[in-house]
Amino acid sequence: MSQFTLVIGNKNYSSWSLRPWLLMKQFGIEFNEICIPLYQPETQSKLSQYSPSGKVPVLIHEKQTIWDSLAICEYLVETFPNLNLYPQDKNARALARSINAEMHSGFQHLRQNMPMNCCAVLPGKGMTPDVQKDIERITNIWRQLREQFSKEGNMLFGKFTIADAMYAPVILRFKTYGVQLNSICQDYSEAVLELPGMQQWLEAAKNEQETIPAFELGDNHPRPI
Amino acid sequence: MSQFTLVIGNKNYSSWSLRPWLLMKQFGIEFNEICIPLYQPETQSKLSQYSPSGKVPVLIHEKQTIWDSLAICEYLVETFPNLNLYPQDKNARALARSINAEMHSGFQHLRQNMPMNCCAVLPGKGMTPDVQKDIERITNIWRQLREQFSKEGNMLFGKFTIADAMYAPVILRFKTYGVQLNSICQDYSEAVLELPGMQQWLEAAKNEQETIPAFELGDNHPRPI
Repeated sequence: MSQFTLVIGNKNYSSWSLRPWLLMKQFGIEFNEICIPLYQPETQSKLSQYSPSGKVPVLIHEKQTIWDSLAICEYLVETFPNLNLYPQDKNARALARSINAEMHSGFQHLRQNMPMNCCAVLPGKGMTPDVQKDIERITNIWRQLREQFSKEGNMLFGKFTIADAMYAPVILRFKTYGVQLNSICQDYSEAVLELPGMQQWLEAAKNEQETIPAFELGDNHPRPI
Repeated sequence: MSQFTLVIGNKNYSSWSLRPWLLMKQFGIEFNEICIPLYQPETQSKLSQYSPSGKVPVLIHEKQTIWDSLAICEYLVETFPNLNLYPQDKNARALARSINAEMHSGFQHLRQNMPMNCCAVLPGKGMTPDVQKDIERITNIWRQLREQFSKEGNMLFGKFTIADAMYAPVILRFKTYGVQLNSICQDYSEAVLELPGMQQWLEAAKNEQETIPAFELGDNHPRPI
């Protein structure tokens, strides 16, 4: 039994769940996994056993419950100070937290119109002028960081950090909806998709039975939890 | 000249700006202030001089630009480790980060239907069943924390921390739209409104000349930046 338990939603759909899951897998932090399929009749009652906010992901560690992907990441940073989950340089770390927070509260158009749906292939679906603006901002962030940190590795800050985990669901959205990327962003996306943790997540998503109709349409709908 | 510069929007409307502004004022961290009135013809060109995301707030410190309220708070935590901007206990700190992150990405109905408008008095405006659910969740958070930390002071975690700064704009929304609160939440709200930093912010908001028509109606509109 690991000392950590991570409560997540469907791997095919739950973009917020992927973030701490991928982070912990890539850094070798062992955890027990509880998966609660979302938007089922029993979902809310199951979630309420673990999640004060009624949303996933939730991390449980030594009777402490931590919810929301960003708060979980910061808790792991404090718990494993030697793992360098964030960049070691203070200014780079401030930059990582800035782009993470921008992702955490922003990009609503992309979120709403291109819901994460790992196994689907829906090229061209969901594109609007506002979605295009979100994509341009995200790819600008990626390009600038890849140019700045290219000597240190192939992730946003060279080595894999929380920032890559925070943007990993966007990479899956771009793949599903066939978003065309410049070569720098394409190379970065492929490097993330090749991470062992991402491969493992995608393999598990393929084996899930449940579908969520609202996320299969590519039309407007509430933000996925 | 202080070593910090904080770029904010209108004090009457910009809920995100209030958070780091109040935090820095309450902890005596000096800063130069640049206020950019939002939704004016020249707003975007002025913002683009300072903000990579095109949004406020932005903190500038020794040539480093940090954007988004949460990332700014975490940067200040690192810069002033002895000020205890978060609770000192690790589990309380995890709880503070959880509710902060929940605020940061959530409560969309409250945000959209009851935009921050410090000087307005609009009782009953903006209430919907979904807004009511957001209010219930927020007041549940406050009540539980006030019960748990009542011996240590009158803020969410006893003493004033980042969590109070993150929820301060909600207190102003409740005031503007006349939201009825139970006595624990009412006492907490009044204690926050009495903070010197809040008094100073409200006084400055009264003296602002610009109005933003979309935020004066109490109707649906995009999320304030």
